[in-house]
Amino acid sequence: MDGPLLNTIDAPQDLKPLTRKQVEQVAQEARDTIISVITERGGHLASNLGVVELTLAIHRIFDSPRDRIVWDTTNQCYTHKLVTGRRDDFQNIRLAGGLSGFGEPLESPHDTLAAGHAGTGLSIALGIAQAAAQKQEDSWTIGIVGDGALTSGSSFEALNNIVHFNPERFIVVLNDNGMSISENIGFLTNWRKRVITHPEYQAMIGRMRALSRRVPMGDITYRLVKRLRDGVDGFIVPTTFWTEMGFQYLGPVDGHDLRQLEETLTQARTPTGRVPLIHVVTHKGHGYEPAEDDPVRFHQPSSPLGDTSGAPTYSKVFANTMKQLMAEDPSVVGISAAMLEGTGLEEVRQEFPDRVYDVGIAEQHAVSMAAGMAATGAKPFVSIYSTFLQRAFDQVVHDVCLQNLPVTIIADRAGVVGEDGKTHHGAFDVSYLRCLPNAIVAAPTDENELQHLIYTAYNHNGPFAIRIPRGTATGVPMDDELRTLPLGQGAVIREGGDVVIFSLGKAAGAAVEAADILAEHGISCGVVNPRFVKPLDVDLIIDSAQRTGRLVTVEENVLAGGFGSAVLEAIAAANMKGVSVHRIGMPDSFVEHGTAEEQRRRLQLDAEGIARQVLSVYFPQKASAVATGA
Amino acid sequence: MDGPLLNTIDAPQDLKPLTRKQVEQVAQEARDTIISVITERGGHLASNLGVVELTLAIHRIFDSPRDRIVWDTTNQCYTHKLVTGRRDDFQNIRLAGGLSGFGEPLESPHDTLAAGHAGTGLSIALGIAQAAAQKQEDSWTIGIVGDGALTSGSSFEALNNIVHFNPERFIVVLNDNGMSISENIGFLTNWRKRVITHPEYQAMIGRMRALSRRVPMGDITYRLVKRLRDGVDGFIVPTTFWTEMGFQYLGPVDGHDLRQLEETLTQARTPTGRVPLIHVVTHKGHGYEPAEDDPVRFHQPSSPLGDTSGAPTYSKVFANTMKQLMAEDPSVVGISAAMLEGTGLEEVRQEFPDRVYDVGIAEQHAVSMAAGMAATGAKPFVSIYSTFLQRAFDQVVHDVCLQNLPVTIIADRAGVVGEDGKTHHGAFDVSYLRCLPNAIVAAPTDENELQHLIYTAYNHNGPFAIRIPRGTATGVPMDDELRTLPLGQGAVIREGGDVVIFSLGKAAGAAVEAADILAEHGISCGVVNPRFVKPLDVDLIIDSAQRTGRLVTVEENVLAGGFGSAVLEAIAAANMKGVSVHRIGMPDSFVEHGTAEEQRRRLQLDAEGIARQVLSVYFPQKASAVATGA
Repeated sequence: MDGPLLNTIDAPQDLKPLTRKQVEQVAQEARDTIISVITERGGHLASNLGVVELTLAIHRIFDSPRDRIVWDTTNQCYTHKLVTGRRDDFQNIRLAGGLSGFGEPLESPHDTLAAGHAGTGLSIALGIAQAAAQKQEDSWTIGIVGDGALTSGSSFEALNNIVHFNPERFIVVLNDNGMSISENIGFLTNWRKRVITHPEYQAMIGRMRALSRRVPMGDITYRLVKRLRDGVDGFIVPTTFWTEMGFQYLGPVDGHDLRQLEETLTQARTPTGRVPLIHVVTHKGHGYEPAEDDPVRFHQPSSPLGDTSGAPTYSKVFANTMKQLMAEDPSVVGISAAMLEGTGLEEVRQEFPDRVYDVGIAEQHAVSMAAGMAATGAKPFVSIYSTFLQRAFDQVVHDVCLQNLPVTIIADRAGVVGEDGKTHHGAFDVSYLRCLPNAIVAAPTDENELQHLIYTAYNHNGPFAIRIPRGTATGVPMDDELRTLPLGQGAVIREGGDVVIFSLGKAAGAAVEAADILAEHGISCGVVNPRFVKPLDVDLIIDSAQRTGRLVTVEENVLAGGFGSAVLEAIAAANMKGVSVHRIGMPDSFVEHGTAEEQRRRLQLDAEGIARQVLSVYFPQKASAVATGA
Repeated sequence: MDGPLLNTIDAPQDLKPLTRKQVEQVAQEARDTIISVITERGGHLASNLGVVELTLAIHRIFDSPRDRIVWDTTNQCYTHKLVTGRRDDFQNIRLAGGLSGFGEPLESPHDTLAAGHAGTGLSIALGIAQAAAQKQEDSWTIGIVGDGALTSGSSFEALNNIVHFNPERFIVVLNDNGMSISENIGFLTNWRKRVITHPEYQAMIGRMRALSRRVPMGDITYRLVKRLRDGVDGFIVPTTFWTEMGFQYLGPVDGHDLRQLEETLTQARTPTGRVPLIHVVTHKGHGYEPAEDDPVRFHQPSSPLGDTSGAPTYSKVFANTMKQLMAEDPSVVGISAAMLEGTGLEEVRQEFPDRVYDVGIAEQHAVSMAAGMAATGAKPFVSIYSTFLQRAFDQVVHDVCLQNLPVTIIADRAGVVGEDGKTHHGAFDVSYLRCLPNAIVAAPTDENELQHLIYTAYNHNGPFAIRIPRGTATGVPMDDELRTLPLGQGAVIREGGDVVIFSLGKAAGAAVEAADILAEHGISCGVVNPRFVKPLDVDLIIDSAQRTGRLVTVEENVLAGGFGSAVLEAIAAANMKGVSVHRIGMPDSFVEHGTAEEQRRRLQLDAEGIARQVLSVYFPQKASAVATGA
């Protein structure tokens, strides 16, 4: 990496003796490093480029790890990693065995929690500050939250409690980049619109204009100023709001001006009896023109090493089917929680702008609002990543299932997700959804089945969840006509007399390959697509169990309470004896980052892993014959 | 019921022709009815007395069910029930087969959703308004939220989206009674403190003083005025806040003044391009002196028909043990989400005021804050009702289990809860907690075991959940010394050679009685206390299965993915054959209200039900002998 000055920074204290000009050079080198690594292999680009100067300023003014820096979500911690002793490992970020793309206390004492879900950072920071105060430590806690994560109700709960408990030596930094992942929504945006006429804004324009003639990145700053003036981008000046709430409001501060940042952070250390909230205006993608121009796309550019099969993603197939349904039925609506692009709903919105709702990072609200709509005759489809759907669990229980309302939930990114790692796997949805009364829970094996399941959900008058995996589908031909699939009915993919694999959803592909491998060993292995976790196709299970006495279940969900567990329940309820069930799934641990393929291999969820397990559990002689090369 | 005018109100339209004086009489009669029924049998008293006039005013100005009235939480819907055709059934509220204590669309088209968890009402209301708008209905939607529920992040998500989508014909009513269940917390309270000097406050004092000479309940109003002046109670005048947020702020309105209420509701119907937010100041317990003086106690007075065994509640034992631990270790802290009294933490706070945190109705924040504290050396115990812990599920996954932090969660009110009914049972926690890596999940059979489990959690360096039931414990003697129990080790309560019951937690009592009944039929039935759902005492399960071939599991959790399912998993993993497991638990449906005893009987979770099932499943000849009286 070409960063002569950055290469001298082994710990945050190395930043302190530098001149401000030198720190600006470190910023430039950090930015170059991030752009070079992340454009090559994927990761959170725009958000990290926005906080380079902010990160350096905090590390200059405070004393990590004694002082604790808590990034909400932690996906913007790249500069932080670069200056806390992990520079040489940065090239391997998000690779198996390499640095995590999020905070990770196991990597460094400078990281507080391994967070990855927006909106809990301020709560964690408040807890840290309270515990430090109880121990009579005189350390500082700095909680940094983006304006996007502020739309999350959990952030609001934290803010409310921060002013209530009013801890000393606690600072909130609002990283205001005018957007979260998709465009931001809500009242913060309204403020932004009104800001143009605000005197604070005018003063800041003046300051920045002067600045743009002085600093090296002057032209970029000038572009930012220009955008502000054009009202294309923007920032918040809600002095009244934060003051009313009980904070000591400081700002707005230009988040790319080290001097302003350092001065304001220093000022925040002076006690006023109120928690300071520093309003920092940053520019997502700062210093990298493609990311500045399209920060949504550059929120997390994919690795160019991605799939090239040409098959659509499952999300895309969801979007296509939604468009079909919406063209025919005006009561169908789509709801997203700040993931319009990721869920495919953005292209649906382009066609039906009034019937796709983006509620911001507010999964709870997304689900309850869907319940209200369903209670009033609409047919809402809410698409949320499986891992984030956890945030709305109570709403799924209480507002959807308890009311038995026709809300369809797409649990996207279910199963292993690859590089985002342990905070992002959809590892629990089968367990936490199938325990709910009134819920239908399904998983398609391919995109054609997905479109029929969506249509089945559309025609079902009650809660319906469909889990779909991350990434491209299988490339099967799509039926022209949408069909309603009978609830609780699976399908035999392949007959087999020695053992039958029940593979849930995407796992079907690996299961069929595993059956091929087993056939080479003279084992007749059937494969069943259960299609529904709930209601379960009990007849198919009982029949397969009776014929072979040996079942295998495969799922990308933890084993505890998962699909395999449902199969055990069915067999126990039928009081069948002499049947063995071997369950394959995600382990009772959090799965580290790497490619999804590596993860599946490591977890024995790929064809070889499945075949190996079937052999060793049910056909140990043949397995040892394989092992000894016989 | 002695209510001559109320008795003429069969539907909301019957209120419309009345004079205001007559409506005041209806209010008085409704209040008398509520006091008489609820003081006799328990229910939400104070909150309902606070909204009598508000309810009547809304029904006079709007046209339910065409216009939709959405109460957040819905526990304050008693007056609404009285004037929407359910007056004659009101005496049976909360009894089995009688009216629900919450909203219930199955009872009446005037009820929107059967809600019972605070903070989702505004989201539901927004969904209703959006769907109505899509259908081009010209109906109104009125969402009513208490200031307590406003501390919930989900309410904030809804407010944010309301100003964003800015629906027409939508009204938010803020029912500000200066407290939620426990004393309110956060910035709304800070405002309240500053209100004394506010000109709006002075004006309102004047209005109310004048009023107190005119209206029949003048003395009560005067007391309210006096309290306001003393600063004991209070209200909010956050005009700026709501206006900044994007609402059309209307108020404050005296919530016990029908004229003011009706005028403001009428005014709110005039379009201004912004959603009106009507700030109504009500007085919890209004018109019933004991409840006015102690609204926390009268939030939900217990039925006098309660337990009289003299044994402590499980919550009380938790509190006692906490006090013991806190006296010895300054790092131990307690956290509650607006349930200080219910969880027993109030009395802990009295002894350790600085180490018990009440965060308001903010379960998410409670858990994340605990994670932050645990990461900084504290030993937090978070006590949340099982049903409300659902709200913090993602935080339990992401901020506690993923980080493997020593946070102990007390899932209080686990299992059936009786009169609060289907929104409040703790029916899912075993399923949604045992699927999480790093989690320990335990349930005590009695209060002595509870204190040892708490001590075990205290000594465990990772996430630990203890589920405890509602109500009184068993009355066993308490050991003087706290002990650490070995993780994953159950205990044999009674040996038996024909069948063994594994009963989780409280179910042990019924299981032992069932074993007695079975003994009368010549069946030797063992009973095991598994103590831990995770890790499971696999040896004990395998041993019992080998000896008898017949296991029964009993739990107050749904069967899907529950404790019995974990037992099936253990047996399948051991590849044992010829073992039967009959699982007894809560059904795959939401359990209606009634007494907990009735619910257990109906669900066959009582001794007779368990014995009956064991007989019919495993000893059908003896069962039929019983059935025929042989």
